[in-house]
Order: sequence, then C-alpha cells, then structure tokens
Amino acid sequence: MDNNIFDLSSNNAEKIYIKGKLHPIRVGMRQVTLQNGTKVILYDTTGVYTDNGYKIDTGKGLPKVREAWIKDRLEKDGELHTQLWYAKQGIITPEMEYVAIRESQGCPEKDAITPEMVRDEIVAGRAILPSNYRHPEAEPMIIGNKFLVKINANIGNSALGSSIDEEVEKALWAVKWGADTVMDLSTGKDIHQTREAILRNTPVPLGTVPMYQALEKVKGKIEDLNWDVYKQTLIEQAEQGVDYFTIHAGILREHIPAALKRVTGIVSRGGSIMAKWMSHNNQENFLYTHFEEICELLKKYDIAFSLGDGLRPGSIADANDEAQFGELKVLGELARISRKHDVQVIIEGPGHVPMHLIRENMEKQIEWCDEAPFYTLGPLVSDIGAGYDHITSAIGGAMIGWMGTSMLCYVTTKEHLALPNRDDVREGVVTFKLAAHAADIAKGHPGAAERDLQMSKARFDMRWNDQFNLSLDPERARKMHFEMIGSGADHCSMCGPHFCAMKITKSI
Amino acid sequence: MDNNIFDLSSNNAEKIYIKGKLHPIRVGMRQVTLQNGTKVILYDTTGVYTDNGYKIDTGKGLPKVREAWIKDRLEKDGELHTQLWYAKQGIITPEMEYVAIRESQGCPEKDAITPEMVRDEIVAGRAILPSNYRHPEAEPMIIGNKFLVKINANIGNSALGSSIDEEVEKALWAVKWGADTVMDLSTGKDIHQTREAILRNTPVPLGTVPMYQALEKVKGKIEDLNWDVYKQTLIEQAEQGVDYFTIHAGILREHIPAALKRVTGIVSRGGSIMAKWMSHNNQENFLYTHFEEICELLKKYDIAFSLGDGLRPGSIADANDEAQFGELKVLGELARISRKHDVQVIIEGPGHVPMHLIRENMEKQIEWCDEAPFYTLGPLVSDIGAGYDHITSAIGGAMIGWMGTSMLCYVTTKEHLALPNRDDVREGVVTFKLAAHAADIAKGHPGAAERDLQMSKARFDMRWNDQFNLSLDPERARKMHFEMIGSGADHCSMCGPHFCAMKITKSI
Repeated sequence: MDNNIFDLSSNNAEKIYIKGKLHPIRVGMRQVTLQNGTKVILYDTTGVYTDNGYKIDTGKGLPKVREAWIKDRLEKDGELHTQLWYAKQGIITPEMEYVAIRESQGCPEKDAITPEMVRDEIVAGRAILPSNYRHPEAEPMIIGNKFLVKINANIGNSALGSSIDEEVEKALWAVKWGADTVMDLSTGKDIHQTREAILRNTPVPLGTVPMYQALEKVKGKIEDLNWDVYKQTLIEQAEQGVDYFTIHAGILREHIPAALKRVTGIVSRGGSIMAKWMSHNNQENFLYTHFEEICELLKKYDIAFSLGDGLRPGSIADANDEAQFGELKVLGELARISRKHDVQVIIEGPGHVPMHLIRENMEKQIEWCDEAPFYTLGPLVSDIGAGYDHITSAIGGAMIGWMGTSMLCYVTTKEHLALPNRDDVREGVVTFKLAAHAADIAKGHPGAAERDLQMSKARFDMRWNDQFNLSLDPERARKMHFEMIGSGADHCSMCGPHFCAMKITKSI
Repeated sequence: MDNNIFDLSSNNAEKIYIKGKLHPIRVGMRQVTLQNGTKVILYDTTGVYTDNGYKIDTGKGLPKVREAWIKDRLEKDGELHTQLWYAKQGIITPEMEYVAIRESQGCPEKDAITPEMVRDEIVAGRAILPSNYRHPEAEPMIIGNKFLVKINANIGNSALGSSIDEEVEKALWAVKWGADTVMDLSTGKDIHQTREAILRNTPVPLGTVPMYQALEKVKGKIEDLNWDVYKQTLIEQAEQGVDYFTIHAGILREHIPAALKRVTGIVSRGGSIMAKWMSHNNQENFLYTHFEEICELLKKYDIAFSLGDGLRPGSIADANDEAQFGELKVLGELARISRKHDVQVIIEGPGHVPMHLIRENMEKQIEWCDEAPFYTLGPLVSDIGAGYDHITSAIGGAMIGWMGTSMLCYVTTKEHLALPNRDDVREGVVTFKLAAHAADIAKGHPGAAERDLQMSKARFDMRWNDQFNLSLDPERARKMHFEMIGSGADHCSMCGPHFCAMKITKSI
C-alpha cells in the first residue's frame, strides 16, 4: 500500500484531535488552513491513516481505538451490552460522546450535537451506532436522520476475480474518499481471509451479507442451505468483527407470486436465494422463523441488523409495488422484535424508483418501521443510465436523503455492467458524498452549509488553492484547473480576462 | 470531421422518417431493433448526419430542411410571421406538426401529442418553437413543460483558445449525444466566423449572448458599450440565423445594492457587464429601456428571447434572495411585453440553489412569468462539488425539470475550473439527458417510461446488446461491460454464475 494516498499536506490540511469532556477520548478531524488563515474543520473517515507520519502496515493492522473503553466497561460491569441497552439505561458511552463531537464539525456552538441527543436518538430507535466488540479498530460513527447522511461503499470479489490485497486496497481507497462504512460482498474464494484482512485494516464499520458465504459453504446449492450452516456463518463473521449484517428475513412465501409477476422479478441476490429456497422446500424463510435466535446472537457482539430488502424494485415499472411494500411491512415487524432484544437495526431500501414515487417510499418506511434508519441503494430514478448509474442513483439518493434516509449505498458507474475498479470506487464514493452533503444542506443539518460558504468565499476571492482544498476531491479539481491554465490567475479560467463576472462585480 | 461518429448501425439502429398528415414533412427518428425483433423508436437530435451514407462536409453545410416551407409561406402571405403569431391566428404550421410527431415517440396512440396541443401551448406562452428564418438547417423542436424536457449544451471559445473547426466539432459532438439546442458563447477571436460555421452545420436551434460580441466590438471596455453597437450586433447575428438570444434586460439599477451584498456577488457575465455599465453611467439598463425596439427586431426573424438572469445566485448562501427575485419579477413584466409583440420568450433561471429551495424558485417563476418556459442552469445543489459539478447540477436539474422547467442548460465536470473539452461535452450532455429523462418520467410524459421498460425487459432477459443499444451512451456501456468479460454471458457480470438474482428468479 502507498502511504501517499493519505497525505493531507498537499491540500494544506492536517489531522487534529478534539478531546472528550465526559470520557478520555480524542476524535480525529481534518483541518484545512485557508490562504487567509481561516481554519475549516471537516468530518474525516480516514482514522490514523492521515496522522502525520503514520506508516501503513496491512500485515500488522490498525491500532485498536476502542480497546481500552471495552476493557474498562467489562471490568466495571462484568459483561458487555449493546449501545442500545446502555442508551436505554440512560448511560452515555464513550462511543456516543465520540459521535457527538464528530457530528458537530462546522456547527455553531448553540446548535452542536450533544451526547444526550445521540443517546436519545438511539433509545428512540431513530439512530444506530454500529460497533461489534470484535472490531475495535473502527472509529465510532452514527447512522440516523438527525445526523449527517452517511454513505456506504461496496467492495468484494466475485468468482470472476480480484485478490485479498486488491480488496483491502479498495477498502482503504473508499475510506480515503469518505466512505462512512464499507460492505464486503465477496462471493468468490478466500472469503474468510479477505474479510479478516479488511477488518483489521479498516477504521470504519464493516457490513456483510452472511448468506453469500453460507451459500459458498453448500457449494452454491440453494436447496442445501439450512439454518445450521447459516448460523455457523453468522458466528464466524461475528467473531471476526463484522459490525452489521444484511439479513433478508422479511421476504416471505406469500410475497413470491407478486414478485414473479414483475418486469425484473427479484434483483436482490439475497432475496432471490431465499425465494428459491422457500419455493423448493415449501417452507417459510428460515431467517424469519429463527429471527429471535439471530437477535440473541447479534446482541452478544453488538452487531446491528441491516434488514435486507429482498424485494427491492429493479426497474421503474416495479417501484412501490405490492411485493416491495409487502416485505417492508414485515421489516417493520422485525425491527420491533430486534429492539425488544436491544439489538440495533436499520432497514434497507430500493433500488429503482422514479422521482415522483420517492416520497411515498420514504413515508411508508417511516410509518411501518417506526422511524428506524433507512439505508437505500440509490434509488435510481431511471433504468436507461448504463455507464452513468452513479448519477442516476445520486439524483434519487440526494432526494431521499433530504426526505429522511440516513445512509446511502453508493452505486458506481459500472452498475449493471461490470465490477468496479479503483477509479470507479473513487468516482462512486465522491458522487455519493456530494449527494449526501446536498441532503445535509437541504434537511438543515446545522454545520453542513459552512463548507459551502467557505468554498464560495474562496471562489469570489479567486483563492484557487482554497477552492481545491475545500472540495470533495481536491486532486481532481486541481488537475482539471492546471491542465488548462497555470496558477496565479486573477480571473476565472472559463471566461478569459475581459469576461470574469466576479472581477467585474468587484470593480463596481 | 469523422463521419463514423454518427454511425448508428453498430448500435443496431437506423434512421427512419415519419410523414406528416397536414403538411409535406418528414420527421427523423432513431429506430432500434432489439434481438427479439421489437422495434423501439427514440427521439433523435442528429438531423441528416445519421442518414445512411450521409457524408459530412462542413464547408458546404447542411441541407435546408425548412427552406421550402418558408418559401411557400412567403409566396402565400407575402410576409413572414412568428410561430406565436400563426398560433394566435389558429394556424398549424409545418413546424408545429413536426414537433407534435417528434414528441409522440413512445406514446400510446391515445396519448400522442397533437399539432393542436402544440399550437395551443404556444398561444398560451407556455411553449416556444425557436426558428429564425435565417437558420433553415435547424429541425423544429419545442420547449415547454407539457413536452419532453430539453437540454442545451454550451460551447464557444474564450480569449484562451480553440479554433473554429474545434467549435464546429464540439457542436456536432454535442448533437450526437443528444443536445436539443446549442449555445455559442464565444468571447475570443473570430466570433462571427465561428458562429457562421456552427449555424450552417447544426441541425438544432442555436442560441447566443449577443452582449459578448458587442463588448468585443468596444475592445472589452464596458463603459464604451451603447445601444447602437448592441443593436448592430443583434442585427448581425439575426441575419446569420441565431434562433434565440440571451438578453439581460431584467437587471435594473435598483437591484445592484442587494447584489453587491452577496457572498458571490454577480456571477452572470451578462449581468455583471450591465451592472457595471449602469453604475458607471448612472443610467438604467439600456436593454430594458430599448426592450420594445428589440421586440420589433426579433419579430422579423422569429428569434426568441431567452431573458437572462443576470442575478442568478452563484452560491447556496445567495439562493432565492432579494436580488434574484427582484430581477425575476422584471423578467415576468418583459415576457408580457414580448408576447404582446408576438415574440416567443423563455426565462433563464439559476444557478446554485439547495434542494429545499428549488420548489419556491419554480413556483415564483410560474407565477410571475405567467408560465413562460423556464430554462435553468442546473441548479447546483451544493457549492463543493468542483470536478463533479455535472452531478451537483444534474441533481437539481432533474428535480426542477420534474417541477416544471422546460429546458436544462448542461453543466460540465469542469464547471468552475476550466473550459470543457470533447470528453467533458459528452459527459455533460449524457448526464443532462439522463436528468431530463428522469424528469420526463416523474412528470408523466406519456412516452417517457417506455424506453426504461424495454431496457428493463432486456436486462431481465440478459439481452446485453439490447441494453447497450437502449442506453444513452451505448459506446460507453458496451466498453465497460466487455472490458470485464466476453460476450454471451448468461449471468450478470457482477455476480458470477452462482449469484445471479435474475437467473435464480427464473428458476423458481
């Protein structure tokens, strides 16, 4: 791995740490120093990688930022509970204070996110703090609609290729560009080892779809799947430190006829696997029938549910249909059971949804799932964007984020066409950071528009380096600009010297 | 110019012509033949360039599709009027029938757009049909919110570079990817010759900002601008065949103080020039005081007004402010004067607007401008997307298109950073076609979702070539797919053979 990918100095930035008041914690942020001396503090997902002088050693793994807190808690109580359990007791954990500080970047003092707010949102089930005790390398972060909209980047190999090192590199690359969580969706060989390497080197929560590995264990034969092999897979991944599991427990036998009538049927891999299993065995979904056992297991580690939408629409024609909404109601029922067990839970959402149907999707999710955080893939607002589907989905993602979705799963330019490479991961992550940020502004997150304000002031003052350093991808912005003209321009490069509106404005 | 850029055969498509019933017209469309024999007809902006065997000769220029109609009209009436004048008399012109046929692609018979509807929308001022008599090479198209959302691509040189040939090539390239109109914003040398070459070779309406050339005529000295030099420029460009003029007649002296208080001041070049002129000369905007004279001039050629928003916000902080809305009210007043003179008119809009303020912007425009078509730049929903601003603006563009905007001006990845090159033009045009198409679906244009339906059926059936050929950029989609795997796959390339949801669905 190349250490230089985490170099902040070329963007006139550095890593700073803000100390906690309730707990002995230090929260890493990125501080950009502008040409006029102004300091702008930005949310940062890169963990110690951006610490000055840090050397990447993927064999050794990351320092364990949460180890001392966990040890301390265990010594005091004799046992470990979920963040939801602590919140219900009125306790503010170090993780809660950590995310309160993280979320307050750019906020005026009076509007800062408090640890109490974090705790109360978790109690209400409106937010989760994914934090498997076995993944102490991950820095705490929160997913909930009162907080910044988060984005997830999917990585993972398939039977068709890519090595363990390549997947670790993709994870770090995603984190560099701002991924708040990473999902490892590997389905090929070396699943266990790939996941282990990612977990030990990733400073953000990791999610998986355990069904993929369970299916590999029965050699791809869906008919041979059973609760036992699935449960063993959950335990294996829980012990490794996965922070949230996508579990397709909401698709039931009764939903299948409506799904088979669709234009694009079932497009979720997990959903199609369960549908096939139920149909072959004439039995109800074993993830549904064993749901409380799964709760018991997840509770021990503080792993969160990400209840999978096996019936998400795969085309505009199938959006908001009987199959999708039928499953969504079951997901709401399962969310209530999960919370009863003090297990944190989020709900996965579509998929392909035209703009005029997005609000209905969001409103039904809020109503039926008691405001559990929504975690959507896109939605894609058209089916014809092949090669540009990061954009098709960023349009829907920005809108649904504004309307209340807490986390957006990125979609890359290669969606529907091929697996993403390194460049596609960067393009996908930055595109979704942009969509999430637009949603933060629109929903009125108190700190969100500060970065835009600083950017616009820099633009009006022709402070080019400040513009690059405040943008989501300073390297690309800088490169595009300097390919055209040299530095030191006192006019916008698009207009030439006579036609710079800002320069003319200043002369009035 | 490379003829191959307009080759349709590699996408299993061909140019077909549909005949008129009222007039001897033939309307070009693109017909894609799917692997299962289904024919899908798509809207096409490429004119004769995609006719089988057509050879590009930029020296000779395009055939004049409207020449015979114009001649016929002149012989019959002894004079020429605007499309708005004919519509008010109840006349359906060949241009009106032409766009009715064009707009009905994909529509069920009962929902087809009729020539009467086209005429009535023009009478109501809710749509325009830009058609300078001196630009008979342009195929008729319509801009109005009852019709497909259109997109414009800006091209043009600046003092910093690019040749006439390069600009013609950019115009054709934009048209290949689906630009509905092109604006030539040249500010450098050879403005007249560049425009002439573009006009004679472009099958879509051309727009300009005449102020740019007027300013060149006074050697860039804003103080030296005057009505006479501007009027001479209008006449020069009118004679050449420009179809619509951006004219910043709505920015008045009273608006300047509010604009100067902004974070980013005035970001419209035309707006800043007029503000500077007014402030230096202590006089009202001469485009406002001479507005009726301009109407008289435009009427002779049937050139449409695109009333410029000199005070569009250039940052989130300035959105929907006193300066913008003050000017917008004046634009509404000018639109009423324009219609009184039978001159067609559209209104330009922002700019930078966060998502939660877009609807207010659209509603005020509808109210104050009596439903005149809105033509927006984006809007960009954040300020920090440098290098990705085609996406920042596609998000806002899709939303405002859904809410009623009739045409979106594309924004390229290089916005705020540099002038776009050929690749940027392609990326910008396709991105905005996607945003416009998403808006067409959401607003319920009767034919819009048919292409998505065909695409999704192809996806479910694993008809890969059909997916490429139905997408907005078949070349990119095909390339991305085949870089990863060979042809003939019976599973989605992302999932490998065991994990294809669609394949599993089919086996149920």
